[in-house]
Amino acid sequence: MSHNTFGHLFRVTTFGESHGPTIGCVIDGCPPRIPLTEPEIQQYLDKRRPGQSRFTTQRREPDAVRIVSGVMEDESGTRVTTGAPVALLIDNVDSRSKDYGEIKDRYRPGHADFTYDAKYGLRDYRGGGRSSARETAMRVAAGAVARKVIAHVRIRGALVQLGPHAIDRQRWSDAAIDENPFFCPDPHAAVAWETYLDEVRKRGSSCGAIVEVVAEGVPPGWGAPLYGKLDAELASAFMSINAVKGVEIGDGMAVAALEGETNADEMRHGGGETNGGAPEFLSNHAGGILGGISTGQAIIARFAVKPTSSILTPQRSVDRFGDEVDVRTKGRHDPCVGIRAVPVGEAMMAIVLADAFLRHRGQVGGGPPGWPFSRTPG
Amino acid sequence: MSHNTFGHLFRVTTFGESHGPTIGCVIDGCPPRIPLTEPEIQQYLDKRRPGQSRFTTQRREPDAVRIVSGVMEDESGTRVTTGAPVALLIDNVDSRSKDYGEIKDRYRPGHADFTYDAKYGLRDYRGGGRSSARETAMRVAAGAVARKVIAHVRIRGALVQLGPHAIDRQRWSDAAIDENPFFCPDPHAAVAWETYLDEVRKRGSSCGAIVEVVAEGVPPGWGAPLYGKLDAELASAFMSINAVKGVEIGDGMAVAALEGETNADEMRHGGGETNGGAPEFLSNHAGGILGGISTGQAIIARFAVKPTSSILTPQRSVDRFGDEVDVRTKGRHDPCVGIRAVPVGEAMMAIVLADAFLRHRGQVGGGPPGWPFSRTPG
Amino acid sequence: MSHNTFGHLFRVTTFGESHGPTIGCVIDGCPPRIPLTEPEIQQYLDKRRPGQSRFTTQRREPDAVRIVSGVMEDESGTRVTTGAPVALLIDNVDSRSKDYGEIKDRYRPGHADFTYDAKYGLRDYRGGGRSSARETAMRVAAGAVARKVIAHVRIRGALVQLGPHAIDRQRWSDAAIDENPFFCPDPHAAVAWETYLDEVRKRGSSCGAIVEVVAEGVPPGWGAPLYGKLDAELASAFMSINAVKGVEIGDGMAVAALEGETNADEMRHGGGETNGGAPEFLSNHAGGILGGISTGQAIIARFAVKPTSSILTPQRSVDRFGDEVDVRTKGRHDPCVGIRAVPVGEAMMAIVLADAFLRHRGQVGGGPPGWPFSRTPG
Amino acid sequence: MSHNTFGHLFRVTTFGESHGPTIGCVIDGCPPRIPLTEPEIQQYLDKRRPGQSRFTTQRREPDAVRIVSGVMEDESGTRVTTGAPVALLIDNVDSRSKDYGEIKDRYRPGHADFTYDAKYGLRDYRGGGRSSARETAMRVAAGAVARKVIAHVRIRGALVQLGPHAIDRQRWSDAAIDENPFFCPDPHAAVAWETYLDEVRKRGSSCGAIVEVVAEGVPPGWGAPLYGKLDAELASAFMSINAVKGVEIGDGMAVAALEGETNADEMRHGGGETNGGAPEFLSNHAGGILGGISTGQAIIARFAVKPTSSILTPQRSVDRFGDEVDVRTKGRHDPCVGIRAVPVGEAMMAIVLADAFLRHRGQVGGGPPGWPFSRTPG
Repeated sequence: MSHNTFGHLFRVTTFGESHGPTIGCVIDGCPPRIPLTEPEIQQYLDKRRPGQSRFTTQRREPDAVRIVSGVMEDESGTRVTTGAPVALLIDNVDSRSKDYGEIKDRYRPGHADFTYDAKYGLRDYRGGGRSSARETAMRVAAGAVARKVIAHVRIRGALVQLGPHAIDRQRWSDAAIDENPFFCPDPHAAVAWETYLDEVRKRGSSCGAIVEVVAEGVPPGWGAPLYGKLDAELASAFMSINAVKGVEIGDGMAVAALEGETNADEMRHGGGETNGGAPEFLSNHAGGILGGISTGQAIIARFAVKPTSSILTPQRSVDRFGDEVDVRTKGRHDPCVGIRAVPVGEAMMAIVLADAFLRHRGQVGGGPPGWPFSRTPG
Repeated sequence: MSHNTFGHLFRVTTFGESHGPTIGCVIDGCPPRIPLTEPEIQQYLDKRRPGQSRFTTQRREPDAVRIVSGVMEDESGTRVTTGAPVALLIDNVDSRSKDYGEIKDRYRPGHADFTYDAKYGLRDYRGGGRSSARETAMRVAAGAVARKVIAHVRIRGALVQLGPHAIDRQRWSDAAIDENPFFCPDPHAAVAWETYLDEVRKRGSSCGAIVEVVAEGVPPGWGAPLYGKLDAELASAFMSINAVKGVEIGDGMAVAALEGETNADEMRHGGGETNGGAPEFLSNHAGGILGGISTGQAIIARFAVKPTSSILTPQRSVDRFGDEVDVRTKGRHDPCVGIRAVPVGEAMMAIVLADAFLRHRGQVGGGPPGWPFSRTPG
Repeated sequence: MSHNTFGHLFRVTTFGESHGPTIGCVIDGCPPRIPLTEPEIQQYLDKRRPGQSRFTTQRREPDAVRIVSGVMEDESGTRVTTGAPVALLIDNVDSRSKDYGEIKDRYRPGHADFTYDAKYGLRDYRGGGRSSARETAMRVAAGAVARKVIAHVRIRGALVQLGPHAIDRQRWSDAAIDENPFFCPDPHAAVAWETYLDEVRKRGSSCGAIVEVVAEGVPPGWGAPLYGKLDAELASAFMSINAVKGVEIGDGMAVAALEGETNADEMRHGGGETNGGAPEFLSNHAGGILGGISTGQAIIARFAVKPTSSILTPQRSVDRFGDEVDVRTKGRHDPCVGIRAVPVGEAMMAIVLADAFLRHRGQVGGGPPGWPFSRTPG
Repeated sequence: MSHNTFGHLFRVTTFGESHGPTIGCVIDGCPPRIPLTEPEIQQYLDKRRPGQSRFTTQRREPDAVRIVSGVMEDESGTRVTTGAPVALLIDNVDSRSKDYGEIKDRYRPGHADFTYDAKYGLRDYRGGGRSSARETAMRVAAGAVARKVIAHVRIRGALVQLGPHAIDRQRWSDAAIDENPFFCPDPHAAVAWETYLDEVRKRGSSCGAIVEVVAEGVPPGWGAPLYGKLDAELASAFMSINAVKGVEIGDGMAVAALEGETNADEMRHGGGETNGGAPEFLSNHAGGILGGISTGQAIIARFAVKPTSSILTPQRSVDRFGDEVDVRTKGRHDPCVGIRAVPVGEAMMAIVLADAFLRHRGQVGGGPPGWPFSRTPG
């Protein structure tokens, strides 16, 4: 019911504004005795941190995370979760509220300025307040904890399209993802993107992007039917990220053009012992989910991020008093928010899967992470 | 938490299997004193009912709905809701379980057969049991009740792509939608689709489709920030429909290729009295939602439905015992499940919006449906 | 959020009115492969069924339950749950709406007549509509399913006080409970109660009662801290039963008068193998719950039921139009609703524990029912 | 689902341990534009603060609260809520973990030591960790915010029994409550309690107590039927407070001994304009709640707090390794935790009512706080 909380058994509640003193989150439902330290969380925050290249906002935030509850040393001196809520805090350091005085009463097109005013009768205009992408830092922090809950699942995100320029999937290289400022798996495309985005940035403009997130190691059986479908949870998770306007699972929107023979993933004997008796799928159009439940294949999802709405070109708008104005957004902005959405997408995938794992364990009684699929023939 | 329930304040819980005696739903949180009769619900069920053309399954279900609780006559003799849960029941009439004996132990590719077995250790193989699209009848019934809660909002769905064939938006006609068996708003495309789908059907194959649902009359301010975003709720709602693999709001996946100047919707003075002081938007790339909150424009969403997985061409698979088999699905199936997904998509839009309306009223204190947007300048 | 639903992972949603055609419930989250048949449910409904002695209402309801979803035959032909929602229906047979015409506009003191009108602007006056104790039939049915989920836990309720007459605990006999019309464990008291309640009944009056419910076999560790405390869940469950005004765990309200030395339950070595290493408690003032979590001892709870508000003596009241009237309730009523609250209390205990078991399994990873307590010394 | 969250539309999530660096809470769903400052919250924290008399723990905690999100200055310079989550933080100052070394492995009788170990496989032994009454500081802080949401409702708590000594209700004085260290409304009893508790304290013992909380100004119609009953919410809220073992509404457990003529509250014409047409009740045995919905009378609830389990007398117990030990608790403890439970009980009442108000507004459409009851005769 709460709109600042995501998840059911693994529940993340975030708080804090872009220009407030502190942002934070409370993770409720994290199982006990999971080793957890601040550096483990920090490494993911560092991937999302602004100011790391000229292609992201120049706001300087160290994003140093502190664990203030839910963790203590066990008998061996290892810091582990206790089952109590894990609260994480990050102090804001580089907020400059004076940058925003002139948009105090003006509705920036593409932003949530007008809608917050329409809903609440006021809004925190300082850096976007609660609607700022600053909130996603806490998603990344919570996602780092979620990864520990499902430690055997590997999650990686990548940017597969920047503006109109898609990658060539034949050139996909996992190693390349961390070697360019775009999380781009195609080294050739990354070079072209650099030229393109430099040009966009210099114009004071912005562009959209598509992020793909893949999770490997999810056993068959996670998720649930109907309104608790794993893909419905993912759709909600990704669509809740700032600026996202579309979500796809597996073949996504392209399934419309397919026929039955090409869409369904055929199966063969899975090879017995090595995969716990699960069948081997001969393709993965379904993106690893059938009927809302994981198949044991890789979970594959994508989401589209719209261009940053803060641009230098003046745009027509109105202010709070109904007067017509032109709005031109200065300040420090990402020319493509899709880039930093990559670690955010990974985090939401981790949170959805950690929650699905705990729900499955509660409702059906599955074993520990890594629990193999096994059936006894009838 | 429940995976058979959708919604928060307006909550729909469904039950029943494809070949069980009865399917039903419980609608909790429906406000009191709303006129409600069975024929009002029946009209929407009739839109979804199978067997109305050769392009949908030939199963003959009258889908006659009964209201068994939550409604009584008021002082004037009008049947109205009482605030108690509204329970709706539909008896299954034309279920032929014997059709399914041969798939009892076989996993049909593209279906949820394997995943249900993996999760639960057994599955109801009779017509797909709970994973059957039969459940969507109750969504449509509940959606009819939701429409009464937000009576001033107009919701209409249409099929905008069938297989590889998209409509021409220049030819859009609302009137056309009800004049062909496809809910197609482009009369010219409808003719071509008939030829195409006849051919697909005769081959024993199937095809995908894209459904678009539009809601007009939603005032600014519905929805919520962050994890309660109106678009996140819609994404979850649509992705929970059988066979859906992608969801888009406004420009959807295409935003990736846009630049900031083209994506953001500019605003001008809205003309004062007539729209309660809300600005006029000069375009609607956002699909009527910014920051998760409605802008007052039309809410526009689309979802892609994969081809029916039940086809005549034999497909490679395995059975419950790990043996390799070929599966060929006979029985009565829709060659394109996307067609009957149109009224289902409308219903989910109605349920999401009724819930958003009640949540907004609870958390912010908005007035009755139709509540105009108004601000007092600071 | 829903006020017609109880539970989190094991969720029960009820619907239907006293004089409607059908009452029912949907049980969501019931684990799969649990054997379940209608007679198993019916036996508990028969304990609650009206008209079994002169001390309960003479309404004749067979309360024949039907399972309409969520159950099918497994490989061996046993009917088991499938993981899908279990829906149960009971048709009302003996409703006489004409009995209630004269209270249509009058507020009966002690009933929810005025408050429903105040909240909803109308109410279903026929037999109390939704506020009738008829709804508790579905609690008992759902409780029967919950018992199957935690099959190793033994739950029994008893009436320990009727009007001003408490039992003598020295004479407690489990066997006696089923041998008198009061669920009274003290055979001597049962005789005295018969005389007392006959006299009350003949006067057209009514009396209150105290119900005690005990659960044995709950392992240490169920429940949760803070707002998910097992005793908080029980308090909510029991207080939600019609006419309940007080709830106690263990020593209950009497703890106020105790001192620290007498209240805390001391522990000794538990005897090793037989109880999985858990300590033996030397007393049970805590009622089997410490910090909201089960200790492994018997869970002991009590609740007080107020006298039936429907009595023959005229009482001062007002009607819907603000006019002063005298109300005298004829019709068929229980002289002590506390009696039939015994199986209802048992059912709510079962539902709370089944939910606690699933939540524990999800959040901490406990084993199957019967899971022994075990620690590895640090 | 979360066990660190209370409420539905007005949701409070707490975190932090007794001896951690910081405790805090996140209040989600607080309506916008409500004036809110730190001193308004601080005044209630000061009522609960330890070390204010010799009858509470000597731990010195200033409990200085900081609002870190959800509040900003409006046009007039007033600090108001924005609709975003209100996060409150309190730094722990006077935690002495070394006090607790010797109970690290020992299970203190009456405490949650054994049960946390049984559930989680470890526990935070430092000052009770999460199970410490320290958490109730955040309840009081959140309750202060809740009071602002329902500003027209007056809530006051009092201690009505200390150990075996009950107050004389004939001597009740609201003014007296703040004039003694017990929140005792009977000045005569307060003197006797001082003598009694001094004696208990010097013995190193402790005693129980009964707290009564009354809310005036709640209009008819708040709360909901069935599982959302206002009294069920209160029962859960109070039972979730540390050491509480019983909860009563109105006449509470005593209703068992009543007969129908004495229990039901009769009604007369309410005097028209002044109370919006609601009837006048001639008594209040129901504690202001019928059928789970408020009657417009005062809401009256009580709860019993057990004696502090930390006492000087050695008690028999076991340690984590199964060895039998004697436990004697030194350190700083309240001889009667019931005293400081008074502001905590008030806070929980405020939270339950703020939530009920928002839920009512969402589901039925009630007006702003103070909304009068009104009916149009049929």
